[in-house]
Amino acid sequence: MTDLSRSAIAARDASDPLAAYRDRFALPDGVIYLDGNSLGALPRKTAARLSRAIKREWGVGLIRSWNDADWVNAPRRIGDKIARLIGAAPGEVVVADSTSVNLFKALTAACSLNPDRTVILSEAGNFPTDAYMMQGLAAFSGGRLCEKLVSRDAVLDALDATTAVLLLTQTHYKSGQVWDLAETTRRAHDAGAIVVWDLSHSAGAIEVDLNGANADFAVGCGYKFLNGGPGAPAFFYAATRHHERAAPVLSGWFGHRAPFAFDDRYAPAPGVERFLCGTPAILGMVALESGVDLFAEVDMTAVRAKSAALGDLFIALMEARCADHGFALASPRDAGRRGSHVSYAHPEGYAIMQALKARGVIGDFRTPDVLRFGLTPLYLRFQDIDDAVAAIADVMESEAWRAPEYATRAAVT
Amino acid sequence: MTDLSRSAIAARDASDPLAAYRDRFALPDGVIYLDGNSLGALPRKTAARLSRAIKREWGVGLIRSWNDADWVNAPRRIGDKIARLIGAAPGEVVVADSTSVNLFKALTAACSLNPDRTVILSEAGNFPTDAYMMQGLAAFSGGRLCEKLVSRDAVLDALDATTAVLLLTQTHYKSGQVWDLAETTRRAHDAGAIVVWDLSHSAGAIEVDLNGANADFAVGCGYKFLNGGPGAPAFFYAATRHHERAAPVLSGWFGHRAPFAFDDRYAPAPGVERFLCGTPAILGMVALESGVDLFAEVDMTAVRAKSAALGDLFIALMEARCADHGFALASPRDAGRRGSHVSYAHPEGYAIMQALKARGVIGDFRTPDVLRFGLTPLYLRFQDIDDAVAAIADVMESEAWRAPEYATRAAVT
Repeated sequence: MTDLSRSAIAARDASDPLAAYRDRFALPDGVIYLDGNSLGALPRKTAARLSRAIKREWGVGLIRSWNDADWVNAPRRIGDKIARLIGAAPGEVVVADSTSVNLFKALTAACSLNPDRTVILSEAGNFPTDAYMMQGLAAFSGGRLCEKLVSRDAVLDALDATTAVLLLTQTHYKSGQVWDLAETTRRAHDAGAIVVWDLSHSAGAIEVDLNGANADFAVGCGYKFLNGGPGAPAFFYAATRHHERAAPVLSGWFGHRAPFAFDDRYAPAPGVERFLCGTPAILGMVALESGVDLFAEVDMTAVRAKSAALGDLFIALMEARCADHGFALASPRDAGRRGSHVSYAHPEGYAIMQALKARGVIGDFRTPDVLRFGLTPLYLRFQDIDDAVAAIADVMESEAWRAPEYATRAAVT
Repeated sequence: MTDLSRSAIAARDASDPLAAYRDRFALPDGVIYLDGNSLGALPRKTAARLSRAIKREWGVGLIRSWNDADWVNAPRRIGDKIARLIGAAPGEVVVADSTSVNLFKALTAACSLNPDRTVILSEAGNFPTDAYMMQGLAAFSGGRLCEKLVSRDAVLDALDATTAVLLLTQTHYKSGQVWDLAETTRRAHDAGAIVVWDLSHSAGAIEVDLNGANADFAVGCGYKFLNGGPGAPAFFYAATRHHERAAPVLSGWFGHRAPFAFDDRYAPAPGVERFLCGTPAILGMVALESGVDLFAEVDMTAVRAKSAALGDLFIALMEARCADHGFALASPRDAGRRGSHVSYAHPEGYAIMQALKARGVIGDFRTPDVLRFGLTPLYLRFQDIDDAVAAIADVMESEAWRAPEYATRAAVT
């Protein structure tokens, strides 16, 4: 049984091998930030680094900075840094575009490798953009491809000889449930399918070994656990064995073998760079690189261990203090099957989350009734979890959530 | 005959109605910047505005800034500001993704409106990414669509009953030649084709009247004349009459009718927002908005007039001082048919441009032999043109371009 006393919790912070990383972030006073899985916090170095990119590289260097500040290689350079965090090799990852656009690249590349099959399979309740990108692609294919969403527990059994691609988000955005990367990939391969992994809630939060799992394609988000800033560019992974045969559909000039030859005919770059498309978003890249550089000396095993411990503590404290308030755990209790957030269903979830935000405890709400608390090992302390659950208990006991202003839905929840 | 004396040129600066705008830009000392058509200069306000977005909106506001700093409406809000510059109505333009990705959106939307036709037509020698995006789409369509590049003077005659879409860059990236927007659109419509205009070298430089031309779709670049910073988000225009029927292929969650309803099924937003895809790149949006806001009180007729005058002066000075140095004008002499840059072909173009850059005269080189000089009316003076041509004359007379270091090609030219 976990010791939930304040002194025991303080002792855990004192012995936390990642404790020093908290100071690398510019966290506002009076806030316990449990939404780093939606938008990661600002690393202290990032503002200065962006300022240099803006004033010196853009302002003074101007067009010359494509060469002099090595902007031109940013997609691959940052990709190689992310590769280390997700079990990929150098040359298998680029940073580009949004996660949604990269999903389209991965889905079309995967379909092109499995041309005799027709079904793109995913999980009902997957993050919406994953499902939507499948649907747009299927609709555009004019009947050549179709998309299929089945319930989570039916996904593996739905793999059959028609399945061209299996698209899954490894860590579920709402429940935090984690697919076994290696075992799921193996099952899909056994059925002759290609797998596209969405690592948006995994990268930088849990250990991911793409190459160990013999993965095909993966995409993921730069603005969550990688702390790349709002709308940061996303990343795209393609296993080396697929580079040559996968023809990009979004065949923009930055994926060309020689962009500045200005040929009329597209010829893909030899490696993963062929999956670049337009001109890279440099300001976003600079911020993302600063966020990713924080991980340079971080042991992902330690990150995973702390993530699990933060989640276990959250659950234990909720059971100890909020058992009578109608919360239903909506995430796996087993940390081994849970990513780096903990979710609870509550019929008054929206108003409760607004009341928590008003007290500086920032999580988010996911329709219809889920309160989601993100656990970012680099900048959260065990005492923050203690304080957050105390705030939840207080909001429930005081019935503060009943205030009328907490009922009005904002555009972004 | 133009008076090319220094005093006459200084007098033109003294009476320039746009002269005050130069101070709004942070231009480095010792540089004459003639590449604002590739990467626009840094507006002075942009660094502070970005700093606020980074430190306050991201750092302190964190996830709350999607609502509190109105990040969520940035694509449409900035789109409406750009609309004014290109003859579009509010609600017809969004800012999103790269130009290349937006080309894909526009091409697929246009094809969906012309389902019985098969050909995507464009100009040989168009900017490469325009051609490449056509080619990727045609290849992916599995024979349903094909792409066709014909020489510029054959484009209009190539319109026929098979033409689904005509894709043209209004102002040619290399020569600066300008297509007549209204007349070309009319010719394409007469042939039953939909037109996609790439306004990358037009927006913010010349007057564009999309609705006056009865245009269908358009895309364009945020980092050239709009001064949005390296890799700024691009813009996307769809005429209101096409909103309802054009189904986005890149159907990401930000184009959904209700993104935070997290439905399993895609349902497009009612207006141009349906052409949004992934999460908006906020840092790039903030910088772009700062650049676009500079145009808030700018009269585009004055911009166009100064652009034409700068180009006419450049050509006149080159004829007066560099007639014997082997330069061949590669742009229209008639300012009415020329965009906001002037190009010259020269067999030693690459080395000459390097020698010019070493003297602080920054233009760019476009293979195989073109020196390109961008003319940005908001921050260039007539005296800059005089100084630039003096530098060209000096580089040629001194044969400075023969220095061995100017022969080595950089990654970005």
